Amino acid sequence: MLDQISAKPHERLAQILAPEMQAVNGLIRDRMASKHAPRIPEVTAYLVEAGGKRLRPMLTLAAAKLCGYEGPYHIHLASTVEFIHTATLLHDDVVDESALRRGRKTANLLWDNKSSVLVGDYLFARSFQLMTETGNLRVLRILSDAAATIAEGEVLQLTAAQDLKTTEEIYLQVVRGKTAALFSAATEVGGVIAGRPEEEVRALFEYGDALGIAFQIVDDLLDYWGSDATGKNVGDDFRERKLTLPLIKAHARAGEEERAFWKRVIEKGDQRDGDLDRALELLNRHGALDETRSEALAWAGRAKAAMLTFPQSELRDLLIELNDYVVARVS
Amino acid sequence: MLDQISAKPHERLAQILAPEMQAVNGLIRDRMASKHAPRIPEVTAYLVEAGGKRLRPMLTLAAAKLCGYEGPYHIHLASTVEFIHTATLLHDDVVDESALRRGRKTANLLWDNKSSVLVGDYLFARSFQLMTETGNLRVLRILSDAAATIAEGEVLQLTAAQDLKTTEEIYLQVVRGKTAALFSAATEVGGVIAGRPEEEVRALFEYGDALGIAFQIVDDLLDYWGSDATGKNVGDDFRERKLTLPLIKAHARAGEEERAFWKRVIEKGDQRDGDLDRALELLNRHGALDETRSEALAWAGRAKAAMLTFPQSELRDLLIELNDYVVARVS
Repeated sequence: MLDQISAKPHERLAQILAPEMQAVNGLIRDRMASKHAPRIPEVTAYLVEAGGKRLRPMLTLAAAKLCGYEGPYHIHLASTVEFIHTATLLHDDVVDESALRRGRKTANLLWDNKSSVLVGDYLFARSFQLMTETGNLRVLRILSDAAATIAEGEVLQLTAAQDLKTTEEIYLQVVRGKTAALFSAATEVGGVIAGRPEEEVRALFEYGDALGIAFQIVDDLLDYWGSDATGKNVGDDFRERKLTLPLIKAHARAGEEERAFWKRVIEKGDQRDGDLDRALELLNRHGALDETRSEALAWAGRAKAAMLTFPQSELRDLLIELNDYVVARVS
Repeated sequence: MLDQISAKPHERLAQILAPEMQAVNGLIRDRMASKHAPRIPEVTAYLVEAGGKRLRPMLTLAAAKLCGYEGPYHIHLASTVEFIHTATLLHDDVVDESALRRGRKTANLLWDNKSSVLVGDYLFARSFQLMTETGNLRVLRILSDAAATIAEGEVLQLTAAQDLKTTEEIYLQVVRGKTAALFSAATEVGGVIAGRPEEEVRALFEYGDALGIAFQIVDDLLDYWGSDATGKNVGDDFRERKLTLPLIKAHARAGEEERAFWKRVIEKGDQRDGDLDRALELLNRHGALDETRSEALAWAGRAKAAMLTFPQSELRDLLIELNDYVVARVS
């Protein structure tokens, strides 16, 4: 009991959902195999077993359980969601030319970019096979829409990242693509497969959407907010010239001289000693960090409100705690 | 009338299917758009309008018409097939580090690898949205299975291409992935959407599968068979160390000294002046080219036999002629 109280909400979710997660892991291992191309399970096993939190498939399982679903297909849907996520990671690492993920070498470095591109495609195809097996056309629509939003958001980020004309509206679209579209699809399909009424399905969508947006805004804020246990270093996004919400807010309020500074360091990428300190000073001067934090808290509030439309239960309260936990990192 | 007789079969197919192809082109233009990310239609338009023969969507339209289909969804399915094909081309060019396709610069060269990877992902997602709109679970299964076979074949090719242990069986799996899986899915879904009996659906699958395999074997043979109007140069595959059917056959019959030659030029990639001539001489000595040609003709025979199970019609005969045309390049 003491153990349960001290554990983090996603760890307690993992405990409650342990039998279902075991079935998901079994299905993932089964479907990531390839009779003919041994490179596929090599790469996939490396990623799938890299010890991620499996937050997205747990969201699907939790939503289905919250809705009293008793069929077999939440396992397929949770595996689908994890496959889409893994495929996205493989392609992201190629696009970002990353060398490390979760402290380990990335697949594109261990094998090559070719393998990452093609194994990612294989996992996308496998995810569509898995969702097709549910025979539920509405979940197919939700998940294929999510896949399109994810890819669109990534392309948008390519062109918007270093462009100071990027607005908060575009930032939000990028964030939906990067994070929230898969979170909201993960929770929504749990309600759809359980055949719940529209208002519950809608509430599950809104919980996932708001949780995902809060999660990403917090992540972007932590890059300037100071070191925490996440392992992110202050200023990584700044050095990579990523235009995230704090910078967009500070730039919107910048005078002429400050605009020239942002143009030099973000658009031109001409960064010198002391520029990060200058950036932090400007972010604070314009209240950009506090305001970004308020927005993250507002999205977390929306996620909580959506979840409160469900009757009280251990699982519902745990999903609310998960949401609180996401923003607690900047509270 | 004289015009029709002189035209190539795929051109006459395009004439017969002109109204449907116009609808397909309209749907493709509509769905390749992106409200938020202008990079997407830029890249896609460049590829989709590059003047390919649109053979795959025409196969779907022809199969549906042959089956007397009168609904609207053959347009969605033909567009799906073209989107999957275009996404595959985008990713292929990244994997092969190609600079030219159909005589024009590739998208990865004009934009960058990142755009090619992500826009390819977008088109995959769009293709799944399109097929979901048909509401037909069987076509969803067929097309998501095809997508998995394509990706698996590409990964297999990565590891098998320069490996002299590659068997004819593995070669056939690679060919199904590269070409035949999408051909057979394209024709099969035309019969499925029309609700035709199993034996007709099966015959359409077999026609597409055998046509695709014949098509790819001919393509691989032409690389050694001599120049034709295809624009391929003799020896391209040899220089890229691709282990295609002619080489697999010659290697299987090679003595010790010849095996050392193949090991040097294909596995080690140590190619010198005169090696291509030596390779051609070995291919001829062991009858590898003639035998490869016989296999292409045998697959074309299977495609024809499958099509002959349909009653005579102008469209049926044109599909048979298309098949004859594919192998005529090496007849």
